[in-house]
Amino acid sequence: MQLAQHTNVADFLIAPDLDRPGLTRRLTGLDQNGQPQDLSVVEERPLTIFLNSREIVTAMTIGDYPEYLALGFLRNQGMLAADEQVTQVDYEEDIDTVVVRTATETSFEDKLQKKTRTSGCAVGTVFGDMMEGLEGLTLPDAPVRTSWLYDLSARINRTPSLYLEAGAIHGTVLCQENRPLIYMEDVGRHNAVDKIAGWMFHHGETGGDKILYTTGRLTSEMVIKTALMGVPTLVSRSGFTAWGVEIARDVGLTLIGRMRGQRFVCLAGEDRLAWDTDPASVSDEPRKSRRKSAG
Amino acid sequence: MQLAQHTNVADFLIAPDLDRPGLTRRLTGLDQNGQPQDLSVVEERPLTIFLNSREIVTAMTIGDYPEYLALGFLRNQGMLAADEQVTQVDYEEDIDTVVVRTATETSFEDKLQKKTRTSGCAVGTVFGDMMEGLEGLTLPDAPVRTSWLYDLSARINRTPSLYLEAGAIHGTVLCQENRPLIYMEDVGRHNAVDKIAGWMFHHGETGGDKILYTTGRLTSEMVIKTALMGVPTLVSRSGFTAWGVEIARDVGLTLIGRMRGQRFVCLAGEDRLAWDTDPASVSDEPRKSRRKSAG
Repeated sequence: MQLAQHTNVADFLIAPDLDRPGLTRRLTGLDQNGQPQDLSVVEERPLTIFLNSREIVTAMTIGDYPEYLALGFLRNQGMLAADEQVTQVDYEEDIDTVVVRTATETSFEDKLQKKTRTSGCAVGTVFGDMMEGLEGLTLPDAPVRTSWLYDLSARINRTPSLYLEAGAIHGTVLCQENRPLIYMEDVGRHNAVDKIAGWMFHHGETGGDKILYTTGRLTSEMVIKTALMGVPTLVSRSGFTAWGVEIARDVGLTLIGRMRGQRFVCLAGEDRLAWDTDPASVSDEPRKSRRKSAG
Repeated sequence: MQLAQHTNVADFLIAPDLDRPGLTRRLTGLDQNGQPQDLSVVEERPLTIFLNSREIVTAMTIGDYPEYLALGFLRNQGMLAADEQVTQVDYEEDIDTVVVRTATETSFEDKLQKKTRTSGCAVGTVFGDMMEGLEGLTLPDAPVRTSWLYDLSARINRTPSLYLEAGAIHGTVLCQENRPLIYMEDVGRHNAVDKIAGWMFHHGETGGDKILYTTGRLTSEMVIKTALMGVPTLVSRSGFTAWGVEIARDVGLTLIGRMRGQRFVCLAGEDRLAWDTDPASVSDEPRKSRRKSAG
């Protein structure tokens, strides 16, 4: 058994911070017996993201790391190029707004202006732009040891988190080999991965030697975002969509789903797996860290 | 015990249709022992929604009921008024597009045009518009028997569904007392509820005597959509966000979460519950119908 007995939170560069004020609230209701029940419930607040003078989107977020969320959202939507020169990121807490400023007008703003002139709005272009970013992209042929997968899964699920405290939240973790590095949580499934993309962009971190772990499903959007971040391996507790698998196979991304206890299924990049662990030697997940329908 | 022993699918007006072609695909990968594993995986495809000549959004959907999805999306976003005269809904399968046409230009299009002139895009206004729709709204003071909750939960979870076959999908069910009526599933959590809103709008069905059941979390957006549909009771297997609870308390919506087997928690509208079932008499969920992280 290679599994760590407990997780040393100091391993993480960023771990869930349960003491940070304003992430959860105590609420009282009634349980099925009509008895008062006190619950810890996650917060959810709007955050409006501007790119220079342009209002882009209002995301619903738990509220931590608004700057990383804004940067990562814009980066993952193809609105900020990898080499874009960001001059300032201003978070105005009282009006729930982040403004990302660049040295010059971005090519996205130029495109948006053209699009706006013709059809009045650019909402529908966003997904097309994400797909465009994949053209010609091939991810590095990175090996993945099954021992890393088991270690990561065990460490992440035993780490104190808002999920374990309050539920109704998704987690995404940037990892290297068997070490979880950056653990983000958010009410929006995509916000957690966007916050990681923002952290990577801000710190100039590359994805080629990383693994992304998520509690959410492996949909097309999740696979595209991971590929755009240059990360060649995506692991999830949840299942797949057919299009997610198709895109992963196209861009050379190793895709592992339904990862729980001893079990997993690999639907893309199977030849990159190095089988260095006997699944029978892996213990089941402790009951309290089982996730049920984060939804 | 009032629970039905098995579900009579004929009770539903619309139930999941597992035989409908194109909703799932067989894919082969490797399991944790390196053995080939054949999996049923849900499809996911883009659907671009137009309101008259204006492109509004591209949603990722499993692909059934595109017309209901388009109508419900526009309705729930406040882009179609309750009394809007829809003259035609055209689904063009080959280009993944639905066009909803109205007799006259909608007030949303008018607003969008103004907004577009000032800031270039209207994405950020969408959420504000949804909140606006809640102003002055008070839902009917509808009683809820706990026996209905237990019946609904048992019936829905024992009904054959894409979730039970392939996972990675969310379900939402429109119910009346203890009877599930319309059961929609989709890869997008909000698409399932939008398809129900579209069905209600198309058939002129009102929400005051209905209950909405969802597998997803009770976030602000879910609560707002339910309220806009005029449905006074929202039940979920999953948890809450603080803002979702706040909005429910403001508009008079009964909010029940973490509904599994005998258990539930009510965080809004507690005084409307009629306790006609002893929780101890309710059986646990059968193992195969437990949902784990639809994500």
